[in-house]
Amino acid sequence: MKAAIVGGGVIGGGWAARFLFNGWDVAVFDPGPDARPAVEAVLANARRALPMLYDRALPPEGRLTFAPDLTFALEGADWVQESVPERLDLKRSLLADCARLAPGAILASSTSGFKPSDLNANGARAIVAHPFNPVYLLPLVELVGLETGPAADVLRAIGMYPLEIGVEIDAHIADRLLEAVWREALWLVRDGVANTAQIDEAIRMGFGLRWAQMGLFETYRIAGGPVGMAHFLEQFGPALKWPWSRLTDVPDLDEALIAKIAAQSDAQSGHLSTRALERVRDDALVTILRGLRRRDHGAGTVIAGHEHTLPAPSGAITVRRVVPVTWTDWNGHMNEGRYGQVFSDAADTVLARAGAMPGTGDGWSFFTVETKINYVAETNAGDKVEVETEVTRAAGKVLSLRHAMRRDGTDLATCDQVLVHVDMTTRRAAPMPGDMAARLAAALSG
Amino acid sequence: MKAAIVGGGVIGGGWAARFLFNGWDVAVFDPGPDARPAVEAVLANARRALPMLYDRALPPEGRLTFAPDLTFALEGADWVQESVPERLDLKRSLLADCARLAPGAILASSTSGFKPSDLNANGARAIVAHPFNPVYLLPLVELVGLETGPAADVLRAIGMYPLEIGVEIDAHIADRLLEAVWREALWLVRDGVANTAQIDEAIRMGFGLRWAQMGLFETYRIAGGPVGMAHFLEQFGPALKWPWSRLTDVPDLDEALIAKIAAQSDAQSGHLSTRALERVRDDALVTILRGLRRRDHGAGTVIAGHEHTLPAPSGAITVRRVVPVTWTDWNGHMNEGRYGQVFSDAADTVLARAGAMPGTGDGWSFFTVETKINYVAETNAGDKVEVETEVTRAAGKVLSLRHAMRRDGTDLATCDQVLVHVDMTTRRAAPMPGDMAARLAAALSG
Repeated sequence: MKAAIVGGGVIGGGWAARFLFNGWDVAVFDPGPDARPAVEAVLANARRALPMLYDRALPPEGRLTFAPDLTFALEGADWVQESVPERLDLKRSLLADCARLAPGAILASSTSGFKPSDLNANGARAIVAHPFNPVYLLPLVELVGLETGPAADVLRAIGMYPLEIGVEIDAHIADRLLEAVWREALWLVRDGVANTAQIDEAIRMGFGLRWAQMGLFETYRIAGGPVGMAHFLEQFGPALKWPWSRLTDVPDLDEALIAKIAAQSDAQSGHLSTRALERVRDDALVTILRGLRRRDHGAGTVIAGHEHTLPAPSGAITVRRVVPVTWTDWNGHMNEGRYGQVFSDAADTVLARAGAMPGTGDGWSFFTVETKINYVAETNAGDKVEVETEVTRAAGKVLSLRHAMRRDGTDLATCDQVLVHVDMTTRRAAPMPGDMAARLAAALSG
Repeated sequence: MKAAIVGGGVIGGGWAARFLFNGWDVAVFDPGPDARPAVEAVLANARRALPMLYDRALPPEGRLTFAPDLTFALEGADWVQESVPERLDLKRSLLADCARLAPGAILASSTSGFKPSDLNANGARAIVAHPFNPVYLLPLVELVGLETGPAADVLRAIGMYPLEIGVEIDAHIADRLLEAVWREALWLVRDGVANTAQIDEAIRMGFGLRWAQMGLFETYRIAGGPVGMAHFLEQFGPALKWPWSRLTDVPDLDEALIAKIAAQSDAQSGHLSTRALERVRDDALVTILRGLRRRDHGAGTVIAGHEHTLPAPSGAITVRRVVPVTWTDWNGHMNEGRYGQVFSDAADTVLARAGAMPGTGDGWSFFTVETKINYVAETNAGDKVEVETEVTRAAGKVLSLRHAMRRDGTDLATCDQVLVHVDMTTRRAAPMPGDMAARLAAALSG
């Protein structure tokens, strides 16, 4: 599969990363001299952060080309993503050209503001596929247009969350909400009520944490509690009319206000370069997303679902993955407890392959009774590692495994593990039933 | 120390939890018949979730009383927190009473809307201390008033993040931003552009993830990148004038709109009880906050800082903590990898006590070369566990430790661990310098 990315920059680069690291070939077209380094900078960030979301390795990277012209970029493309500046005339004519050059492709615009009917005035048949920065980590894509189902399928396959919106309006949904906050924040700075750092803390120490895992309405539903949503909402009516806001005016973003915000932002964040801030942001997002993934909740559900479609290791290989930033300790090495987790995952693979993975409510389970790990070499965040496993004993009550964790063929650690088959009614060791032991002994020869 | 909580309910209960679980005595006064069960329900949630944020045990719980009257509640109180419904007349007279009954206490109102000068019209000298639900997990407290420094110190000591706002305005900062989003969201539902579930996903799959770790301005600073904040802002000017929003109107939250939202919310979340939703939310928040804590970033910095003030284990006890929800596997047990982490933490305690904890840039370190764990009994989320450690060898290059992890005196697992002192220039084992071995041998007898 091939994606053509029309328009480099931060958004185009993020799209390139999503496709490329999910095995698509990608051609980027942008005539600007800054486009290539901008895209490469985004790809470098994404190459580090995106694989850390998953407990399986991503497929082999696709082929990246920087195309000399639009025709070359669009040749054979299955998906064309336009991410040029927000100028309606520019987008209209470019999308019409794309529709002509790649008539069979899905044609999508990253526009944050325009409606499909605006974009297609020159005869294109583009949909809106509006992503959120950093595109390589945030799953949301707002989809607007006549036929968004096939595009939604593609986006899900590259690990994103398509939100199909049935009614076209300017700025779709998310940017309407963002714009509302932005206007109000500008008033707060302009009126000297708070500076940029205070507003940022008011967000990330409070409701920002809520919104990473539940939206506005579900949060209010909880707040309403037993009284019910309707009754809870009634109390809001009067407050909406209170003079709580400058919302009914539009702030004038003049030179003085721009200078004020820029100075406050420098004081708040100027000690870090943009690149350093990106790294801080990406590591925090990876951490949050991995946490939600463990809970199978919100954006974490998207990642867990996508991972399920990634190639599973086979044969004697029981784990193949990247070490995430959440696994390192003060040495910068993988924390020793995480070795135990990797080997525990390897044991789970053996159980699953043998059809011997206990589920909730089964009358039996496997408990690990002993683990002996030898640490051979250091392992760092971002390392691609794999575990090779040998079933050393599978008989009676006991399953013994020997694991070797490697990076590029070099041993990093070895582990001997003893698991015992347990009868969950007595919670005591019990012989494995039927041919389970034989299945386990043969689990890794397939 | 004693806190008087005036007004039960979700907010009062959250305040009670923050004080109580940080060792304060708490007296709750609310004449309503539903207040006591409401507070107890919040305390039950908080007793489970709050300790999971920390890698150290919280201090012993304070004493909780439900006071028969205001006088009894306020007697001897160091902090009085008013959390009654948002009616100015009610708050004014109640705060005046409180000021009279507890003249030496810090007197604070949870109001989301009123200014201190409004509240103090009857002669009280209250400040605003506006928290965010769930109060026992979200750190933010907006502080507004004449003298907020002493209150800020108390809030930091109970693990919260006081945001001192120098200018009083209706609805402070965060609720201005929330109100803006709320109005816009109401328009989207009313106009049939999106339903409540779509709006919630537009938040938590996209910008909600951003805002859990960085605010609005720092996020835009990154988006601006090398062009700089001022230049980046200039492009926003025109967009602010675009007709992107219904913000310039105030929506009418009439019966029809209330019924529409309630029905959509039922379809979205009605399969879960409020209690179940609270559990989902709290587990997700604990997960996010623990992740940010590991990165020492945003709200995680608040938790890490607070933890530092919690009593450290002493003597042969090297770990004392609660097992967080993030540590359980499909059995509902603590994942075996986490045993390794607990014992690794125990080893760190030994190193720290002996003044032998390597820092970045030191010429030496300790590497774990072998860990042997025996799993004796199951361990579950919420369990209070402690590790007792014995230094079995500290000589030459080698430090050997034997750990026992226990819950209420019952062995859960034992661990034998071998660490080697490493010269970081050669990255090879090397004898411990000076009296380091002797200090390690004596580290747990203090």
